[in-house]
Amino acid sequence: MSFIHDDFLLSTKTARRLYTKYAQPEPILDYHCHLPPQDVAANRQFGNLFEIWLEGDHYKWRAMRANGVDEQFCTGNADPRDKFLAWARTVPHTLRNPLYHWTHLELKRYFGIDKLLDEATAAGIWDEANAQLAGDGLRAHGILNRFHVKAVCTTDDPTDDLACHQTIAASGLATKVFPTFRPDKALNVHLPEVFNPWVQRLEAAANTSIGSYRDFVDALGKRHDFFHQMGGRLSDHGLNHPFADFCTEQEAAAIFDKARSGQAATPGEQARFAANMMLHFGRWDAARGWTKQLHLGARRNNNSRRFAQMGPDTGWDSIGDWPQIEALGGYLDRLDRENALPKIVIYNLNPADNYPVATMIGNFQDGVTAGKIQHGSGWWFQDQKEAMTWQMNALSNCGLISKFLGMLTDSRSFMSYPRHEYFRRVLCDIFGRDVENGELPDSDELVGGTIRNICYGNVHRFLGLDI
Amino acid sequence: MSFIHDDFLLSTKTARRLYTKYAQPEPILDYHCHLPPQDVAANRQFGNLFEIWLEGDHYKWRAMRANGVDEQFCTGNADPRDKFLAWARTVPHTLRNPLYHWTHLELKRYFGIDKLLDEATAAGIWDEANAQLAGDGLRAHGILNRFHVKAVCTTDDPTDDLACHQTIAASGLATKVFPTFRPDKALNVHLPEVFNPWVQRLEAAANTSIGSYRDFVDALGKRHDFFHQMGGRLSDHGLNHPFADFCTEQEAAAIFDKARSGQAATPGEQARFAANMMLHFGRWDAARGWTKQLHLGARRNNNSRRFAQMGPDTGWDSIGDWPQIEALGGYLDRLDRENALPKIVIYNLNPADNYPVATMIGNFQDGVTAGKIQHGSGWWFQDQKEAMTWQMNALSNCGLISKFLGMLTDSRSFMSYPRHEYFRRVLCDIFGRDVENGELPDSDELVGGTIRNICYGNVHRFLGLDI
Amino acid sequence: MSFIHDDFLLSTKTARRLYTKYAQPEPILDYHCHLPPQDVAANRQFGNLFEIWLEGDHYKWRAMRANGVDEQFCTGNADPRDKFLAWARTVPHTLRNPLYHWTHLELKRYFGIDKLLDEATAAGIWDEANAQLAGDGLRAHGILNRFHVKAVCTTDDPTDDLACHQTIAASGLATKVFPTFRPDKALNVHLPEVFNPWVQRLEAAANTSIGSYRDFVDALGKRHDFFHQMGGRLSDHGLNHPFADFCTEQEAAAIFDKARSGQAATPGEQARFAANMMLHFGRWDAARGWTKQLHLGARRNNNSRRFAQMGPDTGWDSIGDWPQIEALGGYLDRLDRENALPKIVIYNLNPADNYPVATMIGNFQDGVTAGKIQHGSGWWFQDQKEAMTWQMNALSNCGLISKFLGMLTDSRSFMSYPRHEYFRRVLCDIFGRDVENGELPDSDELVGGTIRNICYGNVHRFLGLDI
Repeated sequence: MSFIHDDFLLSTKTARRLYTKYAQPEPILDYHCHLPPQDVAANRQFGNLFEIWLEGDHYKWRAMRANGVDEQFCTGNADPRDKFLAWARTVPHTLRNPLYHWTHLELKRYFGIDKLLDEATAAGIWDEANAQLAGDGLRAHGILNRFHVKAVCTTDDPTDDLACHQTIAASGLATKVFPTFRPDKALNVHLPEVFNPWVQRLEAAANTSIGSYRDFVDALGKRHDFFHQMGGRLSDHGLNHPFADFCTEQEAAAIFDKARSGQAATPGEQARFAANMMLHFGRWDAARGWTKQLHLGARRNNNSRRFAQMGPDTGWDSIGDWPQIEALGGYLDRLDRENALPKIVIYNLNPADNYPVATMIGNFQDGVTAGKIQHGSGWWFQDQKEAMTWQMNALSNCGLISKFLGMLTDSRSFMSYPRHEYFRRVLCDIFGRDVENGELPDSDELVGGTIRNICYGNVHRFLGLDI
Repeated sequence: MSFIHDDFLLSTKTARRLYTKYAQPEPILDYHCHLPPQDVAANRQFGNLFEIWLEGDHYKWRAMRANGVDEQFCTGNADPRDKFLAWARTVPHTLRNPLYHWTHLELKRYFGIDKLLDEATAAGIWDEANAQLAGDGLRAHGILNRFHVKAVCTTDDPTDDLACHQTIAASGLATKVFPTFRPDKALNVHLPEVFNPWVQRLEAAANTSIGSYRDFVDALGKRHDFFHQMGGRLSDHGLNHPFADFCTEQEAAAIFDKARSGQAATPGEQARFAANMMLHFGRWDAARGWTKQLHLGARRNNNSRRFAQMGPDTGWDSIGDWPQIEALGGYLDRLDRENALPKIVIYNLNPADNYPVATMIGNFQDGVTAGKIQHGSGWWFQDQKEAMTWQMNALSNCGLISKFLGMLTDSRSFMSYPRHEYFRRVLCDIFGRDVENGELPDSDELVGGTIRNICYGNVHRFLGLDI
Repeated sequence: MSFIHDDFLLSTKTARRLYTKYAQPEPILDYHCHLPPQDVAANRQFGNLFEIWLEGDHYKWRAMRANGVDEQFCTGNADPRDKFLAWARTVPHTLRNPLYHWTHLELKRYFGIDKLLDEATAAGIWDEANAQLAGDGLRAHGILNRFHVKAVCTTDDPTDDLACHQTIAASGLATKVFPTFRPDKALNVHLPEVFNPWVQRLEAAANTSIGSYRDFVDALGKRHDFFHQMGGRLSDHGLNHPFADFCTEQEAAAIFDKARSGQAATPGEQARFAANMMLHFGRWDAARGWTKQLHLGARRNNNSRRFAQMGPDTGWDSIGDWPQIEALGGYLDRLDRENALPKIVIYNLNPADNYPVATMIGNFQDGVTAGKIQHGSGWWFQDQKEAMTWQMNALSNCGLISKFLGMLTDSRSFMSYPRHEYFRRVLCDIFGRDVENGELPDSDELVGGTIRNICYGNVHRFLGLDI
């Protein structure tokens, strides 16, 4: 039997029925990912399996490094085929890592390849996949079409002109592609050498000149508005932890001026400035009916030597253990008191924070929007069966999983769409086991309807995207 | 088959035998709950299903709010029947939340109702339950009798005159009802506007005048003594985290005087004052052979807008992530050094604290009282199968589950007694699975005896209540 | 059927085959333990079951105290047989604690005793075991031989002269015994009354006089070198949490001088001094190709009254909840920037730290040494099925379990070798279940080879011990 067979991850009869009948037919709404909009705009054709599969994949690089593979085969200058072969040699050493499952699920769903990838099968798989990549079906648009992707929300800097999004919108592609407002760089007053060039780009994007904090906020507000016009309905923030040490607008202005003059804000100043900016962002999201995403707890760029060589997002990030809850509660409460709390999805990277977060969301449900405050699906290192299950159990036990927005890829790769399938199999396995244990009623109407909502219905209704 | 059937949650033959033979027959000792003593004293008759089931239930309100139900149907002015219907409509959306299990277990055990509650069945269930509530069997005394509740320990303010407890004691009710000394308000020196009126009530209750810190401590000591005369053998404290920054009695007196003069104590002063008061409370408990309960880690009243509208205990609380262990160790050690460490039950709200707490208790077992320091059963958001299992596994692996005091309802509702059944089913399922896996000997004497002790024997012996 | 039977902990057919074919035949490399080298040197004969089993076992003492057993039967003056009987009476109360499994596994593997230990069987087991202990097979060497222990790494103070290790090396014992460099006492500048006598012992051991910080570091360096000559290839550090607040050598020297003059370093000074010393230790380990072990998160000697009576390691320790990750990242990064990062094994005592640690290791894999930075096996309170499984799942999901160094006893007792068997059964059960669930390929070559590596091959290749 194939490793990836019809019942993969589905351990009960009920799970199989739930998956086949309720989960599998649903389309995909990939509401948070890092796909390059230019690749969609250009309907990119991938030259080979390396380009589509390994090019920017820091998950694979981390596994290869841990397997003793030299950096030249990860981010270095080795030949693409040699990089692929180095990856193939690593695959058998990834047993029990999600990469092992993803790899074979992806080979099967994109290329119909059923072999286990290893040194022996690598050359054949390279040739077979490359041959298929030469056709139209595996160009960017073909892939979005094949996986029934109704919409994609990319992750974009406020200074981005969204030209690619305009091209895509005009292209007639059935998949809608929306931008997401991710203003992390607006908080960098402690890094004037990064902050000031970015403010310059913001001036250009907003077609304005920024002489003061007020101008700065206004320029960002204009970009938020522009993202809205382009169909965006989500913002996103990557934070070590939330900020809730709020300051006055005057103090924020002084900190801004200091950074603009080239002086780094102190940690305390940066925290207060960030807290204030996060209030502005929250108010705008609330006013326009957007959904705010908070990605909390990643400790990035741990390896400073490698960071200096390679820059961010190259596989040197991991999970922090900062306290999250005091500041998270403070931030949500402050917006709520102003009647300016938007819909929010909170993704915690540290699984130890699941229960605190899954209970915190209940403090700000408003009795109007069902599931207004959401506990986000297992993120990054938690994007695998064990941690997905933890997140779904936390949300189930402390809140309403029936209102859950479900899966997103969070990926930079066009090869990641089977992660939705993976999630749905895990989801159906959980519910199926509960039904067969007698912990859920044996009612397809009740349970199957819930599955369907978690796969697509909830997120479709919730986000208010123009689909 | 009914959703709630004989084998509910019992997945093995051994689990079923253990439950039926050893767990089910044991009476209930509900050693920590929030039942209103006046309802017991009055042998309250409940006018309808709303009164007995929804009136003060913030678990249900949180679920309803997350389901988009307006506040008027939670804490608001809607008609009781409409509130019930709103709850009924929410129930199908609570799949995998303990509310789904509790709801149907309660309908079955109180009313013999076997239907799944939803919009379609709601009206019929309302009528059927209300008809039954008109009889004597579901008045307060009838319920305590039906569930074989040997004793109930309520949770009481030191300023309470315990008149209801006297009425109950004189009533001949078979269930004994004891007060628990919960002096949380004695720590409020940072909130003089709350603290000072409470000190006045304490003066009245203790029939004394409080002019100084010494008087304050003495008045509290008198109340502790009075609770003892009334049969109380437990104290209880709800704390974000323990306090171990001890100060001198002189400093405590100065902080007290400051608060009495209307000036709020600083956070540091409050912490030191609280640490000192907790020493007094600990010494009294030790001297009188009481058991102290520490409920650690709840972040309360997160939503300040709602708190201002509704006050505490209305569903705006969640799990904090404060460090617990340094101060917990410091507090226990300080009392131990004074030879004044009472029996203690530590309930941690954050499941991430299970292992630290389950190992901390081992540092202060004294070789005299078996299980002197206890890891409390899954509390509040952890009062469900997943987290109960975590707590029991932590205690098993790091200590002796054979000495565990087991379940309590911690509930404000007379409808919560099936939570003991729920706990016992989970307990027997765990032990049953272990037996069938070969991880425990297949010996009913050994395993069944342990089950029986955890259900009733341990707590009965441990607390020394007059039952 | 015996409680400890062939399939103990092996719940699937695949698990049984993996265990029998791949795990069981592998020898043991016990790379971290606390066996007394003098007992190996003397080929100790144990006078009775107390001596070999209870003499220094704080796990058992904790269980006995929690069971209400008086201290005289733990660390006190009771007769050895009476102490054993007190332990035997406690055993039935340890259901679900690893002690229950260990106890019966040990009785079976050392003495072939199949009875459950309790009050009734105690006397017979005492006699039977003692009779067997009189033979040669259960002397220290006989045990190491019986359990195919290829090598043992003891844990040694830098001031130790390693005379016992020299004796053992000269004895022709098939098991190699290597020292491990554990310089915890070198960080004690906050405890001059402990630090200064230790510096004196260091002077003697290094045959030098220590007048300055520079001398101190040099003397330690000489000892590191001596341990290397004696075959040592590991260092070890027991830390509440890592240190990363580095100071200059000048400041370290000033703190050293202060402590030498009898003045305690402040907490901040101690932390900076410790950070600096840890850099020296790291550089030495890297230069000599050693592996550094970090044992993080134990809160020791919680019970100060008992500590004063009995000293350390007598059962008053538990799990701390300090933040670990900022300082851990800072420490690893600092060494990496100097190109002085050795191979490292990180053991976290708090299971809440599993995911942060299992992801942190990926930040410093260097693409040269496979698995260079390791997540250590479940330690101390985590040395049982539940927590072992958590650690292996964390490592699997966040890294490469195929490169895992696997089990060590960390024990003071010659009776602990079955813990390797215990670990291997848990390991095979995990992989076996995954195979039968279809989550791993049904390939003995792939899966069995991985099992074999985790049992012995990885650690043998990794440590570079002379075996």
